[in-house]
Amino acid sequence: MASFKIPKNISEATVIRLSYYLRCLNILKKEKIKIISSKGLEERFQISSVQLRKDLAYFGGFGRRGKGYNVNNLLKTIIKILDLKREKKVIIVGAGHLGQALADFQGFNSLGFKTIALFDKDLEKIGKITKKGTKILSVDLLEEFIKKEKVKIGVIAVHPSSAQEIYDRLTNCGIKGILNFAPIQIKEKEGVVMLNVDLKIRLETLSFYLKNRR
Amino acid sequence: MASFKIPKNISEATVIRLSYYLRCLNILKKEKIKIISSKGLEERFQISSVQLRKDLAYFGGFGRRGKGYNVNNLLKTIIKILDLKREKKVIIVGAGHLGQALADFQGFNSLGFKTIALFDKDLEKIGKITKKGTKILSVDLLEEFIKKEKVKIGVIAVHPSSAQEIYDRLTNCGIKGILNFAPIQIKEKEGVVMLNVDLKIRLETLSFYLKNRR
Repeated sequence: MASFKIPKNISEATVIRLSYYLRCLNILKKEKIKIISSKGLEERFQISSVQLRKDLAYFGGFGRRGKGYNVNNLLKTIIKILDLKREKKVIIVGAGHLGQALADFQGFNSLGFKTIALFDKDLEKIGKITKKGTKILSVDLLEEFIKKEKVKIGVIAVHPSSAQEIYDRLTNCGIKGILNFAPIQIKEKEGVVMLNVDLKIRLETLSFYLKNRR
Repeated sequence: MASFKIPKNISEATVIRLSYYLRCLNILKKEKIKIISSKGLEERFQISSVQLRKDLAYFGGFGRRGKGYNVNNLLKTIIKILDLKREKKVIIVGAGHLGQALADFQGFNSLGFKTIALFDKDLEKIGKITKKGTKILSVDLLEEFIKKEKVKIGVIAVHPSSAQEIYDRLTNCGIKGILNFAPIQIKEKEGVVMLNVDLKIRLETLSFYLKNRR
């Protein structure tokens, strides 16, 4: 694996593209392709080779001029940069359709992540398990569970009206990273990383491109 | 409302930021704020004022130097650019937790969009309605319904193993824009816009920033 450095102020767009490169490299690895040029990646996955070289340059390069990238090495390096080698425990608050969909979603239970519990206040749901086996616990146990299991990532999938309260409770008991699906502006605390997921933005992007073809 | 032009090759990142500006402007409108400078937007919403000016410049500007932006006008212009004035019918294929969450999600039923039906093959689900009242129809009726209702946007929320088949069926009967939640690489057809939503990418971005604080 190539050595790399992580400079300050990497843009979110770059990090997102790293995730995308990771998916492409995984496909190549499955196909037993060992070396690929940036042009090859461009042709196969519509990745801009200029952008790719620029993105990788932030972390120190990795390609040898004219030699292309070693698929396996680049894969391992990106996994390391994104800190996906270490499995991180995830909990989800809100066991509605969204919460249950996320708990059972393969991506929330593979390379880097393991969703270990869902929390809800609904007595009908508490004590049950999701289709793929994640347990639904009472939200009263939230703090105790997080501390005991040393969970660092929390997902907010509750009604917007409860989102701020859940944010405060999560961050008060040690959660350091939050993925928020509630479409409201949350008052944030210093030292906690929060990313908002706004699914409508994807629909709006689609709307734009439907009108203005690429 | 200011006039605007839409140049070719607007990047997806710019379009996504327009959606985000829209959300911020809506908050300001609710607070009855009429004029705001790019610096004001930066302080309030952590929007980069340089980026904002650059993004808006693609479409023709809209701010008068030293005067700031007229909140209402800019709001209306962005709505027009994203083509959100016209309500577009949306259907979702797959009435599992994800499909039902999306069907009931406010963003899929407000400004610009109306989710009018969910489709599934599960006889247990067909004929029922979601919590907020979207009907679940048999996937056998998919083509007939889309043609009759002139639906242009389809959401794929089925198991990855059925995603390609559903993509082909949707695009064969007139769907022009697709939001795909299935984590597989779909073989695309020309003339159709597809955006993939990969929720794991958000978790991976969070993982990166947990390790490398901004």
